[in-house]
Amino acid sequence: MQIAAVVGSCVSTIKNERMVGMKLLIVREATVEGEILGEPYVAVDTVDAGQGDLVLVSHGSGSRQTVQTLDRSVDATIVGVIELLEIGRRNTYEAR
Amino acid sequence: MQIAAVVGSCVSTIKNERMVGMKLLIVREATVEGEILGEPYVAVDTVDAGQGDLVLVSHGSGSRQTVQTLDRSVDATIVGVIELLEIGRRNTYEAR
Amino acid sequence: MQIAAVVGSCVSTIKNERMVGMKLLIVREATVEGEILGEPYVAVDTVDAGQGDLVLVSHGSGSRQTVQTLDRSVDATIVGVIELLEIGRRNTYEAR
Amino acid sequence: MQIAAVVGSCVSTIKNERMVGMKLLIVREATVEGEILGEPYVAVDTVDAGQGDLVLVSHGSGSRQTVQTLDRSVDATIVGVIELLEIGRRNTYEAR
Amino acid sequence: MQIAAVVGSCVSTIKNERMVGMKLLIVREATVEGEILGEPYVAVDTVDAGQGDLVLVSHGSGSRQTVQTLDRSVDATIVGVIELLEIGRRNTYEAR
Repeated sequence: MQIAAVVGSCVSTIKNERMVGMKLLIVREATVEGEILGEPYVAVDTVDAGQGDLVLVSHGSGSRQTVQTLDRSVDATIVGVIELLEIGRRNTYEAR
Repeated sequence: MQIAAVVGSCVSTIKNERMVGMKLLIVREATVEGEILGEPYVAVDTVDAGQGDLVLVSHGSGSRQTVQTLDRSVDATIVGVIELLEIGRRNTYEAR
Repeated sequence: MQIAAVVGSCVSTIKNERMVGMKLLIVREATVEGEILGEPYVAVDTVDAGQGDLVLVSHGSGSRQTVQTLDRSVDATIVGVIELLEIGRRNTYEAR
Repeated sequence: MQIAAVVGSCVSTIKNERMVGMKLLIVREATVEGEILGEPYVAVDTVDAGQGDLVLVSHGSGSRQTVQTLDRSVDATIVGVIELLEIGRRNTYEAR
Repeated sequence: MQIAAVVGSCVSTIKNERMVGMKLLIVREATVEGEILGEPYVAVDTVDAGQGDLVLVSHGSGSRQTVQTLDRSVDATIVGVIELLEIGRRNTYEAR
């Protein structure tokens, strides 16, 4: 799963019926310190994540293995909010 | 899902039977401001998107989770037209 | 689907039983003008494509959604021959 | 499967129900000598891997082909601890 | 399918039960002349490939469409040994 930061949100009213009723957030890949690395993309939120949270994003068919995304036409889902990242014995990130 | 801009269209008459009857558009990855980033590729349109629209593209097996693309030999489908992208509290993109 | 150019062919006699009887072509990602961009790789041909054709290649599980490739151990299939690519109102590529 | 090094661990308490009860490690792609190459990401551990181990990571739908990860919303799983890597006739890596 | 060269082998004794009994080789993406391009990774061998062979590697769910890899937790399988690669009318690679 990718380490990513929630940076914004996406509104889409004209969409496929398999996209209706899902909360769409804009995320970017992040380092273990929470610094942003990658280009923005859109992921479905299944854990009530918020702006600034560091999250775990599951890509591909794994993104549809949740109650909220089953059989949906999605390819990226936020599946967890990260509390703590530890590299070696050092905490590199702790959620506030 | 990737943020992408619709930049053109593709005509293919000699094709596999699992490709018949679908509208094929040329899209390119875009930034949250709607600026073009990536190389052009072809995606199936399921939302009547048009030239210049910013759209959500689902890749991989997720691209076949629509009525129009079920069991089709496709790997990229436009699943929504983007109305609004918001980063922090700032609107970076609004559809005209 | 990726826009790609057919640049050659591949012969493999020692192969898995799920690879027998398929025509294997060498393709490379191409621009909308038909210029070659990417590294060569091998795709199954399902549309009788030929040297120099610009084609649509479906990757991943979508590559097995054809009569010829169902349940085969493949990850890339040529699913259409491109006739015309149009960007804005300009034709960038027309098949001869 | 990717050759990767285990560099840390990840704690996530707010997560999707399909993520509960799995051990999440931070891994990075590595060379055949065990040198770190790539950006950190999170993989499920199914083989009791530890800090510093060189491991095999399976990505995509293959990551869910284990008893521990079946039907889970994951896209990367550690499926083996590497004992030995041999390039030509030279051992490039041996586990301690 | 990726054109790749077999460069070595991998031993893993501590592994997930879905990884038992498979021959694991180290491969690297190669050009149509057989020159090495990419980073080493591990693929399951289903065709008795050997050191120095140029092979076809199927990635993702396609890698499990063989008798040897069905339902295994793998994401890359060697599905053919390449005999001949031809670009235009020139042979760029012939197996010895």
